[in-house]
Amino acid sequence: MAADRLSRIRNTLGAIPDFPKAGILFRDIFPVLRDAEVFKDLNEEIFEASKSYPDVECVVGLESRGFLFGPILAQKLSVPFVPIRKKGKLPGELISQTYELEYGTDCCEIQKGSVSKGQKVLIIDDLLATGGTMKAACDLLEKLEADIVLCLCIIELTGLKGKSKIDKPFKSLITFDD
Amino acid sequence: MAADRLSRIRNTLGAIPDFPKAGILFRDIFPVLRDAEVFKDLNEEIFEASKSYPDVECVVGLESRGFLFGPILAQKLSVPFVPIRKKGKLPGELISQTYELEYGTDCCEIQKGSVSKGQKVLIIDDLLATGGTMKAACDLLEKLEADIVLCLCIIELTGLKGKSKIDKPFKSLITFDD
Repeated sequence: MAADRLSRIRNTLGAIPDFPKAGILFRDIFPVLRDAEVFKDLNEEIFEASKSYPDVECVVGLESRGFLFGPILAQKLSVPFVPIRKKGKLPGELISQTYELEYGTDCCEIQKGSVSKGQKVLIIDDLLATGGTMKAACDLLEKLEADIVLCLCIIELTGLKGKSKIDKPFKSLITFDD
Repeated sequence: MAADRLSRIRNTLGAIPDFPKAGILFRDIFPVLRDAEVFKDLNEEIFEASKSYPDVECVVGLESRGFLFGPILAQKLSVPFVPIRKKGKLPGELISQTYELEYGTDCCEIQKGSVSKGQKVLIIDDLLATGGTMKAACDLLEKLEADIVLCLCIIELTGLKGKSKIDKPFKSLITFDD
């Protein structure tokens, strides 16, 4: 049943060559969201995955595609949803984390007080590639002394070995070698 | 009941002075998402608002904060969710729309074929300020010959008169003068 659902989701994903640059096969999640039944399956799979890690008290979603799935999961679990955004997007008092990209650096931010010390947090994003963004999100939440119980991605590009950067429980629903 | 819910939502919104620049009082939706009960109320209000416009066949959400609410509404209505994103973020064949900002221009995009001719579309975003982004979204969907049945915003800053730019059915849940 779960295997059927995951196959349906996998088969609905788009694959677009040479985006965002030559040589990259881009895995596109949006065709899943255009099929209400398959999107429902995906939300069920995300919920099931989260339940293997008891007592999630907060869902943190990474801008922008983590915003598509995180609020739905948070509502299913009846817990808060908290965003991590790119630099300059969030108002108020913030904590920042700079991280390395292939060329240069980027920076993500979270609102101070949005996650409390010891709170059991699940981080969600659509895709794990090199793992830089997820690692930065973990670092940010550690600064707030949150308890990261799961880093959850829908798609994992295993060839890029991003998982090796993450020293927290990690789960992906669908993997591709390339 | 609905009035109670809307008051609760209104009272939960954040208000941060001088963001993103001096003189602007920023209305922050994220405190609502941090309170699972109030966020549930908000999703109910959005759903109720959408039901006044029958036969919505597709929900279009504007990057990034439209992504927080659009997928939940689309799932409640059992219809597709389709994103409009900033230039360069979407893969595949696209339609683009340039629009004016206070200084300079911006550009938003939608995937070709993601909305079909005559399809009844509801557009959702968190906030209507000057209305430039919502107007651009309407223009983009008109290029695809979609039938825009409702432009829905959670917050409307009425003093900025953004609604006057929108020549489609428009609804907001909460208004502020400034």
